[in-house]
Amino acid sequence: DAGVPEGGLRLAVDGDRLNSLVDPEDVTRVRREGDHIVEIGKGLEWYDGFDTGLFLATPGLFAALREAEAEGDTSLSGGVRRLAARGRALALEVGGGFWCDLDDEAALRRAEKALLARLRGKAHDGPVSRWLNRPLSIRLSRWLARLPVTPNQISLFSFGLSLAAAGLFMLGGYPALAAGGVLAQVASIVDGCDGEIARLKHLGSDYGGWLDAVLDRYADAFLLFGLTWHLLHAGGGDAALVAGFLAIVGSFLVSYTADKYDGLMRERGGSRFRIGRDVRVFAIFLGTVLDQVFAVLVLIAAVMNLETLRRLVVCRG
Amino acid sequence: DAGVPEGGLRLAVDGDRLNSLVDPEDVTRVRREGDHIVEIGKGLEWYDGFDTGLFLATPGLFAALREAEAEGDTSLSGGVRRLAARGRALALEVGGGFWCDLDDEAALRRAEKALLARLRGKAHDGPVSRWLNRPLSIRLSRWLARLPVTPNQISLFSFGLSLAAAGLFMLGGYPALAAGGVLAQVASIVDGCDGEIARLKHLGSDYGGWLDAVLDRYADAFLLFGLTWHLLHAGGGDAALVAGFLAIVGSFLVSYTADKYDGLMRERGGSRFRIGRDVRVFAIFLGTVLDQVFAVLVLIAAVMNLETLRRLVVCRG
Repeated sequence: DAGVPEGGLRLAVDGDRLNSLVDPEDVTRVRREGDHIVEIGKGLEWYDGFDTGLFLATPGLFAALREAEAEGDTSLSGGVRRLAARGRALALEVGGGFWCDLDDEAALRRAEKALLARLRGKAHDGPVSRWLNRPLSIRLSRWLARLPVTPNQISLFSFGLSLAAAGLFMLGGYPALAAGGVLAQVASIVDGCDGEIARLKHLGSDYGGWLDAVLDRYADAFLLFGLTWHLLHAGGGDAALVAGFLAIVGSFLVSYTADKYDGLMRERGGSRFRIGRDVRVFAIFLGTVLDQVFAVLVLIAAVMNLETLRRLVVCRG
Repeated sequence: DAGVPEGGLRLAVDGDRLNSLVDPEDVTRVRREGDHIVEIGKGLEWYDGFDTGLFLATPGLFAALREAEAEGDTSLSGGVRRLAARGRALALEVGGGFWCDLDDEAALRRAEKALLARLRGKAHDGPVSRWLNRPLSIRLSRWLARLPVTPNQISLFSFGLSLAAAGLFMLGGYPALAAGGVLAQVASIVDGCDGEIARLKHLGSDYGGWLDAVLDRYADAFLLFGLTWHLLHAGGGDAALVAGFLAIVGSFLVSYTADKYDGLMRERGGSRFRIGRDVRVFAIFLGTVLDQVFAVLVLIAAVMNLETLRRLVVCRG
């Protein structure tokens, strides 16, 4: 029982009359009284919603269509109008939901663009995500959406790229180091696609988000370990060991404390200062390309552990 | 407004007539009809609860006590009885809550024992906690409860002990290694006291539990880093480096995935297999005392990463 009247239908109606995806020349309009559809048609001057084209109908619709046809009206709206006259056509408000009418190539391109635009500005996106990773990952997702890949497969692929980057770091020498840094940044960009494809294809799942988070923790650790190994084998000594260890621990702790900290900041409604994975990987990218591995490990170690300490204080107060 | 009737009182009543902390010779009994106390006294044969001695009373009680006194009844129950007769004595059921009547030294000892016994068998306790750490930490908490220390101070003290243990590992040589291992195990035992004192003194807080968890993550990392350092400086080479890194990462990931995994297992009602911090620290203790540092790092690395992998699979299925 989805609230369809006996012998009638229920039609999804969009009450957002400013919906920019609607073609005003072509759209069918609806006037309602409460749940009841009272008028429907393309030419309606007084209307309070658009016909989305999504019906849940009983076979009664076919009888109504035949009646309308007998009177010379062969439109779908003709059948609905006859059911509406008997109080058997109800509306379901879907304003705010995504829908669009696809009649031609231009409409398809508009729809694609609108869907992709909805992927921007995820609440947790840090600055590097927002200005570098997200614009590129959205372009990539546009292409990936046509392939039969799942979000979890993308998460695993991105994780594999990070492992390969760590392996390049461990090879030693500047060229491999810089190549690893570029690959780590590419992995971070690809890592945005799992969530985007999940949202585009309605494949989002609690498990998928969690798997991605766990793989990200491993990826972070392997990247930093790769850099530490690189330094140690270049004669970095105990200082490299300590910096690498503190960078790994600090990065973990920032992730470990994120839920609690975000929850508290949401409660307090304050601005959310956030140093996340996007910034970390970008620092690694810059540090390797500039051949400043020790500096970047010290930087990550300092920033991440101080941020953890700051959270311990902020959450207490 | 705590639901105290005008000019009357509300009395906390324990409906658990099998409460083993109650002295049947001395306790005041109560008979109720709904919320209303209808009879009260030591000798009551028909009763459905015990007077805990906790009142929320209006000054009306004093007037009632004076009335009772005038009639030769100088007991507190005498006053309550007179209020009850006017429907002005209500009960508040507290069955299951902890209370006891302290009249003498023997009762004090019974109460202490009962309070400490309630600290056992925390849901998350692993095997080492249950059989080794908890029995010892409860003895320690019994003594700590007399001092003005807060749970968070105990967490920080235990963290300091772990750092000192890591420092001993890094010193090099077997005696310092073994001493560090013993100290790490002592820190793990002391770490049980923060929660116990919090529960004993009703100082438990969301923040306190979180702080303890964050400090535990740092303590774990420093202990494993100390062992790795120990091995590297004893000529352990890359194998030691890799084993230490994987042990640190695996331990973190097991903690990182604990919430999700526990939540899922609670939902499914299945038995909860759990390798936690208690087992990890105990393995470190054994490994150092037996001078098998590399073996214990490999063991922790293998078990923790395989457990993380197992959770990724279990949570998916």
